[in-house]
Amino acid sequence: MKVDLDQLCVNTIRTLAIDAVQKANSGHPGMPMGMADAAYVLWTRYLKHNPADPAWANRDRFVLSAGHGSMLLYSLLYLTGYELPLEELKRFRQWGSMTPGHPEYGEAPGVETTTGPLGQGFANGVGLALAERLLAAEFNRPGLEIVDHYTYAIVSDGDLMEGISHEAASLAGHLGLGKLIYLYDDNGITIEGSTDLAYSEDVAERFAAYGWHVQAVDGHDRDAIDVALAQAQVARDRPSLIMCRTHIGYGSPNKQDTAAAHGEPLGEEEVRRTKEALGWPPDAEFLVPDEALAHFRAALDRGNEAQSAWEALFGHYAAECPDLAAEWQRRLAGELPAGWQSFLPAFEPGSAAVATRAAGGKVLEALAPVVPELVGGSADLHPSTKTFLKSYKDIQAGAYGGRNLHFGVREHAMGGLMNGLALHGGLRPYGGTFLVFSDYMRPSIRLAALMGLPVVYVFTHDSIFVGEDGPTHQPVEQAASLRAIPNLAAIRPADARETAGAWAVALARSEGPTALLLSRQRLPVLAETDPEAVGRGGYVLAGDDDPQVILMATGSEVAVALEARDVLAGQGIAARVVSMPSWELFEAQPRKYREQVLPPAVTARLAVEAGVALGWDRYVGAAGATLTHDRFGASAPYKVLAEEFGFTAGAVAERARTLLE
Amino acid sequence: MKVDLDQLCVNTIRTLAIDAVQKANSGHPGMPMGMADAAYVLWTRYLKHNPADPAWANRDRFVLSAGHGSMLLYSLLYLTGYELPLEELKRFRQWGSMTPGHPEYGEAPGVETTTGPLGQGFANGVGLALAERLLAAEFNRPGLEIVDHYTYAIVSDGDLMEGISHEAASLAGHLGLGKLIYLYDDNGITIEGSTDLAYSEDVAERFAAYGWHVQAVDGHDRDAIDVALAQAQVARDRPSLIMCRTHIGYGSPNKQDTAAAHGEPLGEEEVRRTKEALGWPPDAEFLVPDEALAHFRAALDRGNEAQSAWEALFGHYAAECPDLAAEWQRRLAGELPAGWQSFLPAFEPGSAAVATRAAGGKVLEALAPVVPELVGGSADLHPSTKTFLKSYKDIQAGAYGGRNLHFGVREHAMGGLMNGLALHGGLRPYGGTFLVFSDYMRPSIRLAALMGLPVVYVFTHDSIFVGEDGPTHQPVEQAASLRAIPNLAAIRPADARETAGAWAVALARSEGPTALLLSRQRLPVLAETDPEAVGRGGYVLAGDDDPQVILMATGSEVAVALEARDVLAGQGIAARVVSMPSWELFEAQPRKYREQVLPPAVTARLAVEAGVALGWDRYVGAAGATLTHDRFGASAPYKVLAEEFGFTAGAVAERARTLLE
Repeated sequence: MKVDLDQLCVNTIRTLAIDAVQKANSGHPGMPMGMADAAYVLWTRYLKHNPADPAWANRDRFVLSAGHGSMLLYSLLYLTGYELPLEELKRFRQWGSMTPGHPEYGEAPGVETTTGPLGQGFANGVGLALAERLLAAEFNRPGLEIVDHYTYAIVSDGDLMEGISHEAASLAGHLGLGKLIYLYDDNGITIEGSTDLAYSEDVAERFAAYGWHVQAVDGHDRDAIDVALAQAQVARDRPSLIMCRTHIGYGSPNKQDTAAAHGEPLGEEEVRRTKEALGWPPDAEFLVPDEALAHFRAALDRGNEAQSAWEALFGHYAAECPDLAAEWQRRLAGELPAGWQSFLPAFEPGSAAVATRAAGGKVLEALAPVVPELVGGSADLHPSTKTFLKSYKDIQAGAYGGRNLHFGVREHAMGGLMNGLALHGGLRPYGGTFLVFSDYMRPSIRLAALMGLPVVYVFTHDSIFVGEDGPTHQPVEQAASLRAIPNLAAIRPADARETAGAWAVALARSEGPTALLLSRQRLPVLAETDPEAVGRGGYVLAGDDDPQVILMATGSEVAVALEARDVLAGQGIAARVVSMPSWELFEAQPRKYREQVLPPAVTARLAVEAGVALGWDRYVGAAGATLTHDRFGASAPYKVLAEEFGFTAGAVAERARTLLE
Repeated sequence: MKVDLDQLCVNTIRTLAIDAVQKANSGHPGMPMGMADAAYVLWTRYLKHNPADPAWANRDRFVLSAGHGSMLLYSLLYLTGYELPLEELKRFRQWGSMTPGHPEYGEAPGVETTTGPLGQGFANGVGLALAERLLAAEFNRPGLEIVDHYTYAIVSDGDLMEGISHEAASLAGHLGLGKLIYLYDDNGITIEGSTDLAYSEDVAERFAAYGWHVQAVDGHDRDAIDVALAQAQVARDRPSLIMCRTHIGYGSPNKQDTAAAHGEPLGEEEVRRTKEALGWPPDAEFLVPDEALAHFRAALDRGNEAQSAWEALFGHYAAECPDLAAEWQRRLAGELPAGWQSFLPAFEPGSAAVATRAAGGKVLEALAPVVPELVGGSADLHPSTKTFLKSYKDIQAGAYGGRNLHFGVREHAMGGLMNGLALHGGLRPYGGTFLVFSDYMRPSIRLAALMGLPVVYVFTHDSIFVGEDGPTHQPVEQAASLRAIPNLAAIRPADARETAGAWAVALARSEGPTALLLSRQRLPVLAETDPEAVGRGGYVLAGDDDPQVILMATGSEVAVALEARDVLAGQGIAARVVSMPSWELFEAQPRKYREQVLPPAVTARLAVEAGVALGWDRYVGAAGATLTHDRFGASAPYKVLAEEFGFTAGAVAERARTLLE
């Protein structure tokens, strides 16, 4: 079979995927084989990138939302000249390789986001495209458009079945993100078999309903794909979906168009037959024809040219707008503006009681002018979460100069978009909802933690003290389940002062996400709390050096513990009160410090928290106890709930006293 | 203003909602005011129900997916004659009342499901409608259609923005659920303001794309609503969406059509003005005109007639098909068939190693013929989760006689549908996905636990030992975060034998959901494990009465702990091995039993689990330690991961030995 250069290149992608999966004896060959044509056209004719500098700020972003097809991406990265040697493709899915089973942000250059959990990449792409528009509105000047790139993704049936894709697609249409272009691998096959088993919606009509520009092409007709991409670029007022009708496992005589091609190696015999069918030497492994490599590697020259042109443009920009240029560079470097901490509001001890959600809102309002990279919103709850910046405008289609996003009742998309906004660079996203609804966005929170993205979740209404809305709206297990996520700092501040400290920690944190757990109800502003100590996760609030009992608490229960200490003092019992806003941060302290706060000799310890006990045993020990809430809540005014469920100073003191008996 | 009887009734609904919210000084008046017309037409002209017997099996199901409008439902329940006295409406949102802030299953008769978390009720309704079709296919006989009812819901903008509504709507269209009829409260207002802020999709086109029958009406034109409901009933091949254009807070001179009407009391003055505008005595509170009440209460006679007619039909049915009738009664009573336990497969100790997911599949296959109420599937992963019943057919549109559901890549809808299937009665649903993706369906799991629904989650690929797929697919915090949910029994069996025991517990459990955490990798079938002991949550596997150290473990780490015991024995150290498949079940045991398993005197304790340590401190104590995995995983063959991350008998023994030093 005679093959032209394009075909040779496409088959190089295919056979690299086939070989890597076969060698690993694990992985997904079908998708790379099916989408090789479309990806080839995109990567060699449209994608603006420089393999020599994966961090070039104005590159197009490419997201492989169907992350199981990771070998497609690894092949393209290697072939176009990223620092990903062929040797690493041979170590696909092995310990310590740069080529894990699904693309992982930070493991190989050019991987823009971690994908695999379906639908997440779809939403990340919307965040990336939105970031481009926000930064363009802020930084571009006439004739000096330093922010100007597309965001592309390859999405699968699975991505489009997941609810997050609906939420994110609806938002992308609403926001008119015209530079967002998705190639949909419409291959008709899922793990259980034909997509007909579970998926018969009219995808084109659905995306048209969201306000997208929709095209359908033969996913193996490279010219048609080329034309469709050009058309998608022209449609600047709407995001684009290009439905590529493909054959999964393209070229495999026995497995093409079957679920068997999806998630397992073809098998040695079928690998040979497939290579024969593709006109490939059947015994060659990891074969990269010189002409193909040369053709792919032209990306280096093209990328270099493009980046040089952009750098020249940026030179003019820096000459014309030196302040903006400096700000751009600061923002892209992820450095906070000097002295930002001084703008944190100070809350006077003893001043009027204030809910920590309201205090959080004040902190955000105070920081917003100084930290312009802060951008965010809530999942249709800003009057409750206090996350609306009153001095700034909304962000809407065609009006990207605002600071306030309206995510709608779409927590999951909010989480996925926040990840995309953070991944782009130049922005520090925050997003608010009720703590109980953190469950709706948990898969995105996990990915933020896995990627180490410094996003900030504003989770208000943080306990049963939500009150009348009842158990569906009262978190009880959410604090514990957020504490379970590695690399997520969950902080539940005791009052307004600790809230300021918590925001300071969240902003200073560059290595992972932070969740702020804030109260609905008003809380006293305490003299004992220390904003600076929040960063240590736990500290002594009150009590002498030689206590008989330690009371530890978080959030709204801290004030109750302080009151209980007075009650105990009246009974001649010396109690220490420890505020424990963040276990994660406390665990990161040296053992010596932790033992100063919780002296091992004091074994009478009571933890007070209006949530499940899970995990508190680490701090209270076998001789201690927990005054927690280990069932669902109830609908009633919150003060009634405090009485009924025993979160009062009297009940706390009584429980502490019994510990000493 | 002269008002006719219909108008009087509708305004009775409105003013009850207004008054209850005002009296509670908390709640959502706007939705009941806006949807009163549509709800009135549905409840008085279409809904087949008997307020005197809320448990009548063949009643139409009504779901208030927009649960924040709970006063609409409470008003209707009281007015039509359910055992919900007016006094309880006056105690709206108060401690111990039958009228919590959001409708809660079990708190008031006629509440078919707990709603409030948006989108959940939408998915529950799809499950209810599917249950009707499944049971109809199984039990109906020509001329003896004992299962024949509609499922209605009121859904809101918020419901339709949530991703779960997309997943469930797509599935409902795919499954051709023609007896599902949803009224959409299209009021143009959300909490943050106009829906235009975030929501501009073409909802009619979107639902048409899913294969729904879509109509749009003036939501205050009762005749139009009447006609639309009739049309929706005629469209038997497709689910129906009736878009009701309404005015939120209808009748309020100053708050109608504003976000202010949504989530707070109107205020005393506005209450008066609204009543005046509605032609209502402005000072009357909780006024129920006699004519209105009489008209609503006709539901009792109608319901009695309908139920009597059905009971007569069932009498014929029982005469014609006595076995089926007996089976129907057993199923509706929620009783398992006698002797079902004897069909649990026995796995021989020492037989070939088998993954617990595969063992779970064998258990399911063995139970399916004996327990015909078992119905389920997976989120497009059945070849991996082993949840496909090979002897039974698929469930598809128009072919409801199968047992296998294909949920598609829609974990969240799966969770919501499972709740609906369980709520209907007559079925015991199960659903499978990878444990890491339990995060995608967590809000539905929480509601199953809150409602006490006996659904079974089959969560396979339960640890880093997923292997090559890498950290995105490797759960580390999921076991802990499931353990955090009250009333959910999470069980991680050690081998095939414990897997049989775990399924036995799950099926016998009637008061809440069960999550089975099953391995991808093969595990030895152990002589020491005891299927019967799984119900106690933890038990002694091996070791003498006076051990120096206790090794405790779950799932795949149990075999490692047993091996480690041999290593320690070789060093002269006596170790006890405890299997802890379920903390929830263990905590439910008497203290005496727990202390037999974990004698307080033995403080050298090591917990071994390939997941985060959170919560293990309760069992290992201050002198103990955890050999856990407190970070994300890595992509590599699982045996390599076991070595690299220290989950080997040698590493466990070494760690245990150091505890004794």
